[in-house]
Amino acid sequence: MTRPGHRPADELRDLLGVALGALDAGRRDRVGPLPAGGPVAVRRVALAALGGGRLLTAAGSGEAAALDALTRMLSAGSADPADPFCAAHLHCPPLPVAVAADLAVSALNPSLDSWDQAPAATTVETEVVAALAELAGLDPARAVGTVTTGGTESNLMGLLIGAQGPGGGGGGSGGGPRVAVLCSAAGHHSVRRGAELLGLGEVVTVPVDGAHRMDVGALRAALAGHGGPALVVATAGTTDAGAIDPLGEIAAAVRAHPAPGWLHVDAAHGGGALFSHRLSGLLAGLAEADSIALDLHKLGWQPAPAGIFLTPSGRGWERLETEAAYLNPADETAAGYPSLLGRSLRTTRRPDAFKIAVTLRALGRDRLGALVDACHRLARHAAAVIEADQRLALSAPVTLSTVLFRYVHDVHDRETGSQEALDRLNAAIRLRLLAEGAAVVGRTTAGVDGAVHLKLTLLNPAATPADVTALLALVAATGDRLAAEPAA
Amino acid sequence: MTRPGHRPADELRDLLGVALGALDAGRRDRVGPLPAGGPVAVRRVALAALGGGRLLTAAGSGEAAALDALTRMLSAGSADPADPFCAAHLHCPPLPVAVAADLAVSALNPSLDSWDQAPAATTVETEVVAALAELAGLDPARAVGTVTTGGTESNLMGLLIGAQGPGGGGGGSGGGPRVAVLCSAAGHHSVRRGAELLGLGEVVTVPVDGAHRMDVGALRAALAGHGGPALVVATAGTTDAGAIDPLGEIAAAVRAHPAPGWLHVDAAHGGGALFSHRLSGLLAGLAEADSIALDLHKLGWQPAPAGIFLTPSGRGWERLETEAAYLNPADETAAGYPSLLGRSLRTTRRPDAFKIAVTLRALGRDRLGALVDACHRLARHAAAVIEADQRLALSAPVTLSTVLFRYVHDVHDRETGSQEALDRLNAAIRLRLLAEGAAVVGRTTAGVDGAVHLKLTLLNPAATPADVTALLALVAATGDRLAAEPAA
Repeated sequence: MTRPGHRPADELRDLLGVALGALDAGRRDRVGPLPAGGPVAVRRVALAALGGGRLLTAAGSGEAAALDALTRMLSAGSADPADPFCAAHLHCPPLPVAVAADLAVSALNPSLDSWDQAPAATTVETEVVAALAELAGLDPARAVGTVTTGGTESNLMGLLIGAQGPGGGGGGSGGGPRVAVLCSAAGHHSVRRGAELLGLGEVVTVPVDGAHRMDVGALRAALAGHGGPALVVATAGTTDAGAIDPLGEIAAAVRAHPAPGWLHVDAAHGGGALFSHRLSGLLAGLAEADSIALDLHKLGWQPAPAGIFLTPSGRGWERLETEAAYLNPADETAAGYPSLLGRSLRTTRRPDAFKIAVTLRALGRDRLGALVDACHRLARHAAAVIEADQRLALSAPVTLSTVLFRYVHDVHDRETGSQEALDRLNAAIRLRLLAEGAAVVGRTTAGVDGAVHLKLTLLNPAATPADVTALLALVAATGDRLAAEPAA
Repeated sequence: MTRPGHRPADELRDLLGVALGALDAGRRDRVGPLPAGGPVAVRRVALAALGGGRLLTAAGSGEAAALDALTRMLSAGSADPADPFCAAHLHCPPLPVAVAADLAVSALNPSLDSWDQAPAATTVETEVVAALAELAGLDPARAVGTVTTGGTESNLMGLLIGAQGPGGGGGGSGGGPRVAVLCSAAGHHSVRRGAELLGLGEVVTVPVDGAHRMDVGALRAALAGHGGPALVVATAGTTDAGAIDPLGEIAAAVRAHPAPGWLHVDAAHGGGALFSHRLSGLLAGLAEADSIALDLHKLGWQPAPAGIFLTPSGRGWERLETEAAYLNPADETAAGYPSLLGRSLRTTRRPDAFKIAVTLRALGRDRLGALVDACHRLARHAAAVIEADQRLALSAPVTLSTVLFRYVHDVHDRETGSQEALDRLNAAIRLRLLAEGAAVVGRTTAGVDGAVHLKLTLLNPAATPADVTALLALVAATGDRLAAEPAA
């Protein structure tokens, strides 16, 4: 019988063997990049393994049986980012070394809300923050940061600290002049969601240029029009197109603003370019930010979550300071017991820093950079394939690893077909591929016309150019097939 | 070379072997429940393994070497909840089956923000929510919920949804009458932190009785004094004493309030009693709540995080609804593709539901209940040992698995010794045990006098009564030793 705390290594070793076998069996069951049949079929299979609505019985079915059945179901029922035809989202295949490191964390179960739940892990997080701060161009001795659940939490922290920083007044809690939040139209939805949560009011939308980058002239005009304290969110790697805002120019505009300003850079996607000697120049200006969001579960190949929030100094963090008598009493802090409680909005906090630390130490910057470069090369290859196929049209230039495009049928239809019909066709291509279990291709609406576009986010450095060519051929062939079908 | 997506099973199997070996080696290095020497010594050892300030080199040190060295360091440098002398916090030794299930999630890397990143995992979360809702006495067919990072996030969601629910106005974003938040003095600090974040203003502190339970008469008076919409946070399992507020009476008081009311129950600790046939009666009234926080990384033996947020219906959730063109466009939702994006404040979201699902299915309610009962028996045994030792005094009755007590030296000192001297002595006992690597005993300040108390939180069902007796004997002997030392 499983009793926590008893011979964990032996029992764990046996159960890990069961899980690995079931992962493999589920992969064989699945065949393709995701299960076929769409949500109804997938749900039916999952529900059966989960007890058909009776997940929690009195007696249970035993460790090995439950683990085997449910892991096989999960594996068969996953969209597998390790399959080259699973290419929709910033959803990466994790490095085995990071997965194994994460297992150690699960087994030891440290929690960063007090030193006495995480003696060594406290230092691990501090060192990971320093290493990534240095990579981002900050002074690692002065930088302050934390590991988060992802860009959404990091952006929320940037808003929380930044809205406190420039105007001193914070958000809905009043006091001080109102801080305006400005973000481009291509910024992540979490910026608007976070501002709303914090009572910061409507985010001012700054227009983008044709390449999905923030229009700095428009930003300057918006800042001048507002006049008061401003928090500008720039994006390094937009969700739809992977575009990187002109960070240096934006930083200059914020510095030139006569009222207090704060620049938060959402580099959840683009931050991965820091590992690449070839591509890190794309992020010039990043070090001028007042706060930065990175996500190593994107271009960093970590199991989620592995978000990072960085600031060049401790400015603004007083907003998060908290003292709890059972976690960080003042006399213990004075006695040298460090507390990370004020580094996060969470209390219990798994040290996701550990898998990151092991990955950084294992691969080094060069090998991580080579993985980023491989994804970038795949994206450029995809763009070339699209431009060579008259049925497909590239919708935005490739910056990192995102390829935004449309199926346009043929030149004739491109001229005479209605926008709406093409939108329906592109949306249908994705759903057909999903339902058949053939491919996971992204889809979004972008641009002033709100047209439906398809998207590849190429985060699998083990995929080959031939894989990408074949995936795009499948997309085009599916479009042809759907265009030839009588409309429903 | 590690390439994500290539033969993951083989390479992962080898690396897991490395991690398991290093976990064992680190345990042997450590000897006791935590590393000896205090923060300076622990940091020195950790830093050396982390590259002495050069975590990220150009070339890296290779997967096996980095994983072995850092995992051994983490294991040696952990406060191990599987050691019976590690008993300070709601910090549990995880079940091996949950750890193995979590490995499958790391390997497949699904994310719940869209169906096409988590086809089967979407159903897993839905079923886990339904099973736990039913356990909590809610109608599983109507209940809505989500898996969270813990009580802090669950409490934030309760405040967010609840402040929207009763008054309709939400927090700092204005509109509608102001919602008052009321919580007992023994409630978790995250309630005040969450209310501040959301701009809900000062939380009204309701006094507690001598057993750390909310004084319902005082709650009624506070509600009457306020008059307007009210959000009451009750606690089932306080952090300091494990006390459970009288949920049924509180629910009645909220229902009798003439203005709109919302009852959120923070059962992050006490919710575990639901598994036990003997103890579930302690939570009578829980099903009358409008929202509930549970934490299965406490009395549920999951690796963190495994928080749960539940509501009996979809009421209030419109506050979280969100549509992102790249994740859940309306036409795909209409086509039957489910979206959990509106279930969480996060975007990328690891399915922590999976390890919970495997655990529930494997152990069933009876075996989980037996683990809860075992911890409860250990806590009662601890109370008996304390009451039999004149050097120790029990500070609060035992409800679940928390034992709040003080070292009081002897009867003579209990009468004549100063409060301040005893506070210093109790604080010193904990720090001495930490520095020696001998035990992790909790400490808090509680009660109207703000005295320093020691605390055992007994979450290790594999610990024996003899372990608990020996731990308390060590605490008392350390107190004797410190009391005999000349004051610094």
